[in-house]
Amino acid sequence: MENIILVPLPLSDSQKLKLEAAAPGWQFIYAERSHVDPEDLRRAQIIIGNLAPEAFAKAENLKFLQLSSAGADAYVKPGVLPEGTILTNATGAYDRPVAEYAFAAVLMLMKKFHLYRDNQNRSEWIKEGRVRSLSESVVLIAGLGNIGLCLARMLKAAGAEVIGIRRHASEPPAYVDRLYVEGEIDSVLPEADVVISILPSTEETRNFFDRNRFAQMQKGTIFVNAGRGDAVDESALLQALRSRHLEAAAIDVTEQEPLPADSPLWQEPNLFITPHVAGGFNLITDCHQSYTLNKVTEIAADNLRAFLAGGPMRNLVDFSTGYCRKQD
Amino acid sequence: MENIILVPLPLSDSQKLKLEAAAPGWQFIYAERSHVDPEDLRRAQIIIGNLAPEAFAKAENLKFLQLSSAGADAYVKPGVLPEGTILTNATGAYDRPVAEYAFAAVLMLMKKFHLYRDNQNRSEWIKEGRVRSLSESVVLIAGLGNIGLCLARMLKAAGAEVIGIRRHASEPPAYVDRLYVEGEIDSVLPEADVVISILPSTEETRNFFDRNRFAQMQKGTIFVNAGRGDAVDESALLQALRSRHLEAAAIDVTEQEPLPADSPLWQEPNLFITPHVAGGFNLITDCHQSYTLNKVTEIAADNLRAFLAGGPMRNLVDFSTGYCRKQD
Repeated sequence: MENIILVPLPLSDSQKLKLEAAAPGWQFIYAERSHVDPEDLRRAQIIIGNLAPEAFAKAENLKFLQLSSAGADAYVKPGVLPEGTILTNATGAYDRPVAEYAFAAVLMLMKKFHLYRDNQNRSEWIKEGRVRSLSESVVLIAGLGNIGLCLARMLKAAGAEVIGIRRHASEPPAYVDRLYVEGEIDSVLPEADVVISILPSTEETRNFFDRNRFAQMQKGTIFVNAGRGDAVDESALLQALRSRHLEAAAIDVTEQEPLPADSPLWQEPNLFITPHVAGGFNLITDCHQSYTLNKVTEIAADNLRAFLAGGPMRNLVDFSTGYCRKQD
Repeated sequence: MENIILVPLPLSDSQKLKLEAAAPGWQFIYAERSHVDPEDLRRAQIIIGNLAPEAFAKAENLKFLQLSSAGADAYVKPGVLPEGTILTNATGAYDRPVAEYAFAAVLMLMKKFHLYRDNQNRSEWIKEGRVRSLSESVVLIAGLGNIGLCLARMLKAAGAEVIGIRRHASEPPAYVDRLYVEGEIDSVLPEADVVISILPSTEETRNFFDRNRFAQMQKGTIFVNAGRGDAVDESALLQALRSRHLEAAAIDVTEQEPLPADSPLWQEPNLFITPHVAGGFNLITDCHQSYTLNKVTEIAADNLRAFLAGGPMRNLVDFSTGYCRKQD
C-alpha cells in the first residue's frame, strides 16, 4: 500500500503547501477533476476533492475521502465507496459564498433588477413601480446549517426578522429570531415575505417545497432556492409564479442540471436562474484566493493530521443520513 | 390672498391627515403632478411637491415651496421661482431607497447577476466564474449626505471598508473609516474596489467622473451612479467598460433622461441601466406605504407648522449652492 494522496482540486501553491505540511512523507498527486489517471486513483489511500461517484469503483485502496462539497448524498449510497471508507465533507466552506448569493438574489428580486435588465436589453426606459426592502421584512430560512446561520447574520444586519427552520428543536441560534422544526413550517410560512431554501438533497427534503407549501405562502412572496434542486417541485414553482402568487423567485439549482434548453423555466420573466454557481469555488476574497478552496484546504489539512494520528476528525459524514454526525 | 396649499403628490389618506393637521384653517388641494389646474397654481401660497420648473411662472402668489425631491438644482436657477420664495427640499426622504438601490446594485454586479440574466434569456447554462464579496472590499462613496451616510452603514454591516468623499473636511462620521475632501479623491481612487457616486447636480460636480478619474481607478473596479447623471462623463464611462478597465457599472441616472433609444449605453453588457428609479416614491415599507412619501409628509408637516408660526424650518435650500444651508 503506497502513501499516496490524490487531490483533484485547483489549489494554489500556498494551499498545496498547507496541505502537504499536514502529511509529511506522503506523496501528493494533483490532478484536474476531469483528467484523473486511473492508476493514480487505484493507488490513492486518501482522496481530497470530489470525483464523479462512479469513479470510486476503481479506488480500491481508498481509506479516507475528504469531499470538497458540503453535500455528501451521492457518496453515501451503498456501493459507491469501498467498505469502511472514512468520509468527511466540506461543511463550513460554503457558508459565505452561498449566503451571499441568496442575500444578493433576494435584493435583486426586491429591486426588480431582473426586469430592469430585460428592459435594458430592449433599450426601454420603463419604470416598474414599487420595490421592496429587507428592512422590516420577515425572512424564513429553511435549512439552518452553516450557510443558513451565515445568511441569518447578513439578513439581521439588513434589518430583517429571521425565522429559521431546522430538523431538530433547539434554542434559536444567534441572529435567528424564531426557530421551528420542519414539521411546523406550514404554520409560519404565511408570515414570511421571503422564503429561502438551503435544504440539502435527502429523502426527507425531496419536493419539500411543493404545491401545498407554495399555497401556504402569502401572495407576493419572494422565493430563493440556493440548496438543492430536488427540494423544490419545479412545476409547482412555475405555476405559483405564473399565477403571480409568488412575486418572483431565484434558483441556483434545478432538478436536472444543466437545466434542459427546452425547459419552460428559462422563459418565466419573474424567475431568475443561475447555473449552480452559488457555491463552487467562485467567491474570491483576500489575495485573489478562492474563499472556499481556502476553507477546504483548512478542513482537509486538519483531517489529514487527525486521520494519520488516529485523532477525532471534522465533518464526519453519517452514511445513514448524509449529514455530518454532529451537525446541530 | 387665499390660504391655499397645493399638493401635487400621490399621498395616502393617512398622509393627507398628517399634513392637514399642520395647517388648520388652510384649504388643501391635491392634484396629480401632470394635471394641475392653472388657477389652483395661481392661487396657491404654498406648494408641497415638485412640478416642472416652468410651471412656476404661473405661481404668482407662491410664498413657500416644499420640494418632494432632494435635488433642488432646477428650482434655484434665477427666475424659476417668484422672488422671495422660501424653498425647502426633501433631503432625508431618500436615504434608504437610494442607499438600498446602490447596495443592491453593487451586489448584483459583484455576483454577475446581470450576465446570468442575459444567459438565462438565451436558455444558456453557462458559468461565469469568479464572483466578488463586499466583505473586505474597499468602497468609496462620493457624496456623503443622508444617502451616503445610510449607504455607509449598510456597507459596514456587510464587512466593507468605507472611504467617504465630501465637499468640506470634518471628522469621519459613523460608519465611514476614512474621510477625504473632493480635491483629494484622485489620491484614494486607486484603493477602491467599488466607487459609488451619490453626487448631486451642481456646477462643481459636472463630469466629476471623467476620463482621468476612471483612469485613476484600479483595473476591475465596480462603479455605480445613483446620484445625478451629469456628474459622470458617459463616453468616458463607456470607454472604461469597453476596455475592461472597469469590471462593471450600474447607473440609475443619465445625462439625458430618458436615455435615448439609440444610445450605445443600452447595449454594453457590463453596464446595468435603470430608469431613475432609485429614489422616487417606489420603496414600500410598513403598512404598504411609500417610505419616501412618509418622510416627505413628515418634513412638510414640520415645515408647514414652522412657516405659519415663523419658526426655523428644516432643509432650507441656499439658492447660491442648491444645497441645504446647514448640510455638513
